[in-house]
Amino acid sequence: MRPSGRTAQQIRPVTITRNFTKHAEGSVLIEFGETKVLCNASVERGVPRFLKGKGQGWVTAEYSMLPRATHTRSAREASRGKQGGRTLEIQRLIGRSLRTCIDMSALGEHTITIDCDVIQADGGTRTASITGACVALVDALNWMRAQGMVKVNPLKEMVAAISVGILDGEPVSDLEYIEDSKADTDMNIVMTEAGKFIEIQGTAEGEAFSFDEMNSLVEMARHSIRELIDIQKQALA
Amino acid sequence: MRPSGRTAQQIRPVTITRNFTKHAEGSVLIEFGETKVLCNASVERGVPRFLKGKGQGWVTAEYSMLPRATHTRSAREASRGKQGGRTLEIQRLIGRSLRTCIDMSALGEHTITIDCDVIQADGGTRTASITGACVALVDALNWMRAQGMVKVNPLKEMVAAISVGILDGEPVSDLEYIEDSKADTDMNIVMTEAGKFIEIQGTAEGEAFSFDEMNSLVEMARHSIRELIDIQKQALA
Amino acid sequence: MRPSGRTAQQIRPVTITRNFTKHAEGSVLIEFGETKVLCNASVERGVPRFLKGKGQGWVTAEYSMLPRATHTRSAREASRGKQGGRTLEIQRLIGRSLRTCIDMSALGEHTITIDCDVIQADGGTRTASITGACVALVDALNWMRAQGMVKVNPLKEMVAAISVGILDGEPVSDLEYIEDSKADTDMNIVMTEAGKFIEIQGTAEGEAFSFDEMNSLVEMARHSIRELIDIQKQALA
Amino acid sequence: MRPSGRTAQQIRPVTITRNFTKHAEGSVLIEFGETKVLCNASVERGVPRFLKGKGQGWVTAEYSMLPRATHTRSAREASRGKQGGRTLEIQRLIGRSLRTCIDMSALGEHTITIDCDVIQADGGTRTASITGACVALVDALNWMRAQGMVKVNPLKEMVAAISVGILDGEPVSDLEYIEDSKADTDMNIVMTEAGKFIEIQGTAEGEAFSFDEMNSLVEMARHSIRELIDIQKQALA
Amino acid sequence: MRPSGRTAQQIRPVTITRNFTKHAEGSVLIEFGETKVLCNASVERGVPRFLKGKGQGWVTAEYSMLPRATHTRSAREASRGKQGGRTLEIQRLIGRSLRTCIDMSALGEHTITIDCDVIQADGGTRTASITGACVALVDALNWMRAQGMVKVNPLKEMVAAISVGILDGEPVSDLEYIEDSKADTDMNIVMTEAGKFIEIQGTAEGEAFSFDEMNSLVEMARHSIRELIDIQKQALA
Amino acid sequence: MRPSGRTAQQIRPVTITRNFTKHAEGSVLIEFGETKVLCNASVERGVPRFLKGKGQGWVTAEYSMLPRATHTRSAREASRGKQGGRTLEIQRLIGRSLRTCIDMSALGEHTITIDCDVIQADGGTRTASITGACVALVDALNWMRAQGMVKVNPLKEMVAAISVGILDGEPVSDLEYIEDSKADTDMNIVMTEAGKFIEIQGTAEGEAFSFDEMNSLVEMARHSIRELIDIQKQALA
Repeated sequence: MRPSGRTAQQIRPVTITRNFTKHAEGSVLIEFGETKVLCNASVERGVPRFLKGKGQGWVTAEYSMLPRATHTRSAREASRGKQGGRTLEIQRLIGRSLRTCIDMSALGEHTITIDCDVIQADGGTRTASITGACVALVDALNWMRAQGMVKVNPLKEMVAAISVGILDGEPVSDLEYIEDSKADTDMNIVMTEAGKFIEIQGTAEGEAFSFDEMNSLVEMARHSIRELIDIQKQALA
Repeated sequence: MRPSGRTAQQIRPVTITRNFTKHAEGSVLIEFGETKVLCNASVERGVPRFLKGKGQGWVTAEYSMLPRATHTRSAREASRGKQGGRTLEIQRLIGRSLRTCIDMSALGEHTITIDCDVIQADGGTRTASITGACVALVDALNWMRAQGMVKVNPLKEMVAAISVGILDGEPVSDLEYIEDSKADTDMNIVMTEAGKFIEIQGTAEGEAFSFDEMNSLVEMARHSIRELIDIQKQALA
Repeated sequence: MRPSGRTAQQIRPVTITRNFTKHAEGSVLIEFGETKVLCNASVERGVPRFLKGKGQGWVTAEYSMLPRATHTRSAREASRGKQGGRTLEIQRLIGRSLRTCIDMSALGEHTITIDCDVIQADGGTRTASITGACVALVDALNWMRAQGMVKVNPLKEMVAAISVGILDGEPVSDLEYIEDSKADTDMNIVMTEAGKFIEIQGTAEGEAFSFDEMNSLVEMARHSIRELIDIQKQALA
Repeated sequence: MRPSGRTAQQIRPVTITRNFTKHAEGSVLIEFGETKVLCNASVERGVPRFLKGKGQGWVTAEYSMLPRATHTRSAREASRGKQGGRTLEIQRLIGRSLRTCIDMSALGEHTITIDCDVIQADGGTRTASITGACVALVDALNWMRAQGMVKVNPLKEMVAAISVGILDGEPVSDLEYIEDSKADTDMNIVMTEAGKFIEIQGTAEGEAFSFDEMNSLVEMARHSIRELIDIQKQALA
Repeated sequence: MRPSGRTAQQIRPVTITRNFTKHAEGSVLIEFGETKVLCNASVERGVPRFLKGKGQGWVTAEYSMLPRATHTRSAREASRGKQGGRTLEIQRLIGRSLRTCIDMSALGEHTITIDCDVIQADGGTRTASITGACVALVDALNWMRAQGMVKVNPLKEMVAAISVGILDGEPVSDLEYIEDSKADTDMNIVMTEAGKFIEIQGTAEGEAFSFDEMNSLVEMARHSIRELIDIQKQALA
Repeated sequence: MRPSGRTAQQIRPVTITRNFTKHAEGSVLIEFGETKVLCNASVERGVPRFLKGKGQGWVTAEYSMLPRATHTRSAREASRGKQGGRTLEIQRLIGRSLRTCIDMSALGEHTITIDCDVIQADGGTRTASITGACVALVDALNWMRAQGMVKVNPLKEMVAAISVGILDGEPVSDLEYIEDSKADTDMNIVMTEAGKFIEIQGTAEGEAFSFDEMNSLVEMARHSIRELIDIQKQALA
């Protein structure tokens, strides 16, 4: 029995609020239960130096937790003077995941930056970020089309992500914090609309895991991601 | 005529939402029109080194704007590796303003940190931060009393702040961004419930200002701050 | 009775030594009693990136205290790896104050940087810096005119600054350190030759202050700044 | 046909040189073909602050590439003033992988730091680092036992890692640089002696990958890691 | 013929002003012609961590140039966020030179920090710093004796330093900037009162130098340092 | 009697291995007994900004010790966020020494960076770095000639370096760590093939040293450097 009363496969209620703030070209508040992440997509002309003159665009992401998004306050990275390893790792993952579903030539020499700021954390912030960022990215691309900045839609397909894990020997989907802190294995999976994988990151927290456990986790994730992509599409409809 | 149709003295609609996030001991979303700031108060045992063993508490603040709180995206301070001068100046102002209304002996050896994170900016973010932070501080102090961490209420009186300025030769209260960017003089005033001043910061942006202009701005601010303190009290009722 | 035997309105002896060092285009040592600040103005061709191609100049300031300018040694900011919030706040104030009295179009695409380095501190270092920096700026502008770098004088009017405060319930002008550390309210005021205000920064250190107290401080500051502008002019004569 | 003439499953020649340097408690040069990593294990008394007084030890890792380990010189992180995201991500992976195979209570309040410095890079530096670091760790633990610093062997089982990927539609093991730069999918797998997984990190570089592709890569990795563990054991024999 | 009309052996007029600032336990302005360095010695209880509990003291130095001490303005190290290699090299040299002439046991667990801030530079700032710092150190030691903080004088002997070089094939002493920038060889020598060497740092700027040239430079330096030690002693008399 | 049984003048066995790594244009592992330094020379088109358009090249060096090159592990500079003073001082010395023997016009607008990474330290790492770096530089220059990037050989003459010191009152050459840590005087000397000096850096660690001691050390160094230049030439033959 899970703390929330959910079944093993059941994800938390997911809410996607578009146009959450007014300045960003795409602005999405995504909620997975008590986890709340604001995903703002900003469009800028030009590309980083390594891409100049190649006629391609760039998509990148930054991630941060507000200091009191968590149970106890964590030091603000801006005042510590550097981003921690966990932050850098997560924002690299978000950026990579989004780039896979964009046709960079169709985007032209524009950069889209997705800022994922965690307002409240209760497990699964990185996968909620990817799922929300994809919707914000779609809104930003639609804004660009309305402005005539792109001619064809650079989006190849939607992408979403889920965290799954082994808890008391059983695979479960969409772990909340209290589950995550006890899980033996934690796996973050990013998948496309077409059901293919962009990222699989599985980590044994306590005991190492078997091939069969891995496969049951992956199967569970596929199912949840299909649900998430439906929710994204409804939000965009 | 102001862009919003407000009178010179009229402030924007102010909304205070308590318990906006679930982890912080005090969590307030304050909105001055389109300006939205999340103020989270965190209580920790212990005090900074310079206060150890003196039987006193400490109140401090940190301030940040989300990168896309503004019209165009600004670089994330955590990734630039340092907080800018404007950020440091504002968070010092917030901390100083709050400390003035707390009895540090009554607080005992505890530290309260107020994180003011601007979700959306439309002028007046520092004064909105102070006004919201005071409510979050009250909630955190009430939480401490409920926990038995303090015996008497360390709060001496409420504090609120407003931005006033001279626009086209006329003093106006609570400038929104479009007004602020054209104002000749910008003044931020922090006042107590009893109508006394904690901070006055007036800056000539274009032309220098006269003694009479200063006085009419201060008078306007006093009136608006009285309104804000009423709004704070209703929110806390 | 003040420690120095001065009356409430009386400022400390002020000395302005021009050409204190030989390389800078303007070099002024200003002394307010025991407070000594070296203000060096450096002229450089070109402007910061945000001004390029606009035909305008720029004036900026940097401020620092030598580690042993104070009673006890404070850590060198260069070796700590960053400038503190107080330093950034003060140098922003000095820069803003000086820019208000310069016609940036007349200056053309040149940058003047004023370095204010506190050799010895005894209260009022930021206001002494502004007062001395203005004289160094005039010398640098005169040097530019002699070089043919500017055609008309970019200086609109002189600017000076004073610190005033409430000590044992009485307003006093030009606080020295021992007074400053006990004052209830501390106010820094920057004023032009024409008697108008550029900056007013009043802070309640202990008790909040009233409207009447504010007005009596401002009045006292106006009188002292008029004296300072006379002293600047004599030094430049 | 692979550039080296290897079969799809075939790993490069792996050489493990123990006692490569003389000061470290464990010092291993590991070579996977032209990839060469020096893994030095240092034993220190005491543990990081978050573990003090718990009677447990700690194992951590640092990773770096010499500036000219690669085809073109990359800037030295020490002179840039910070470690990049890739570096932090890799050293977190190495540390996590090693900690899983250590009984921290048996280690007692000691810290073992494994420095993995890449002398020459030709693909697979992170997996070579893990494989070599495990041998250096064993040597350091043996040194501790000889010194009487630990009573029972804290090592639970050996760990090794391999990089596998999909190249021109075919799964291959142990990619060298020229293969890695063209691969569609890149997967790093860390496995224990008992054939269980510690980490699986699969990334779609170009096209997303299918469930079947994932499984064939994992299968290939299992086979290669079994080979690597044999090589480790021979080196330690 | 030297630009100043000096003979090859002749040093510039040297002035030592004690008690230049009022807070430091030793405060010396030293001038070698147009080179002016303020050397402030600060006494603090306690020693750095590596010396705790050993009953010994510590002497260290910091060095900095004011941004406009030179012909053109150089960026302030505090605002660049780090001290440059030249700065670190010089302050290590000053600290080492002073430590050699102090009996650290007699000093007891106290730290003396000498801040050498170059007000105006015209060549030879590092050697002027050492020469002035020694006098400031003596003043600080005398202050400690007056306070009863030390019982016997920790000073073993005086130390002074000079810069010598080869200019147009001829050895000259105490190079000013215009000479220094053209010299083929630059040598900084630190010597004790007893005529022994603490540091010799000779650098070929253009052509390599011969054994005979080295010896004539050293001979010239010995003579000048003897003069400097006389000047120090007169200043202290 | 020296710990190694060497005579006072005798240097340790010196080994130079060229082409130690495969990517660098010059790659040398130099060993002075147990001291091992990898010197990689990288050729890049273009020069630093201060040299642009002058038709000259640039040679620079970076130095680092692997964290466990020493008896006890020292913190990695990249993770501490800055290079220490000792590191900066040494890499400035290496760069200066190499530049003296290169004709920068013949090099053309190319930059050669020599990375000296200490794999194992046993005294004399900076002088081993210079001696090895010179060989790596020659290899890089030969590579440039083969590529047609330079027409005439920019190398004017070979350069090598040795550490000498006074141990128990006797001058000795090529100190190993155990000797270096006890030496009264430590002198690093860089000399050209023609027997002239590029750098002399002598430091009194304990007692100050006399003119005669200096001369006997320099004499000893000359002899050892002649040996080293022979070894360099044999390696390059």
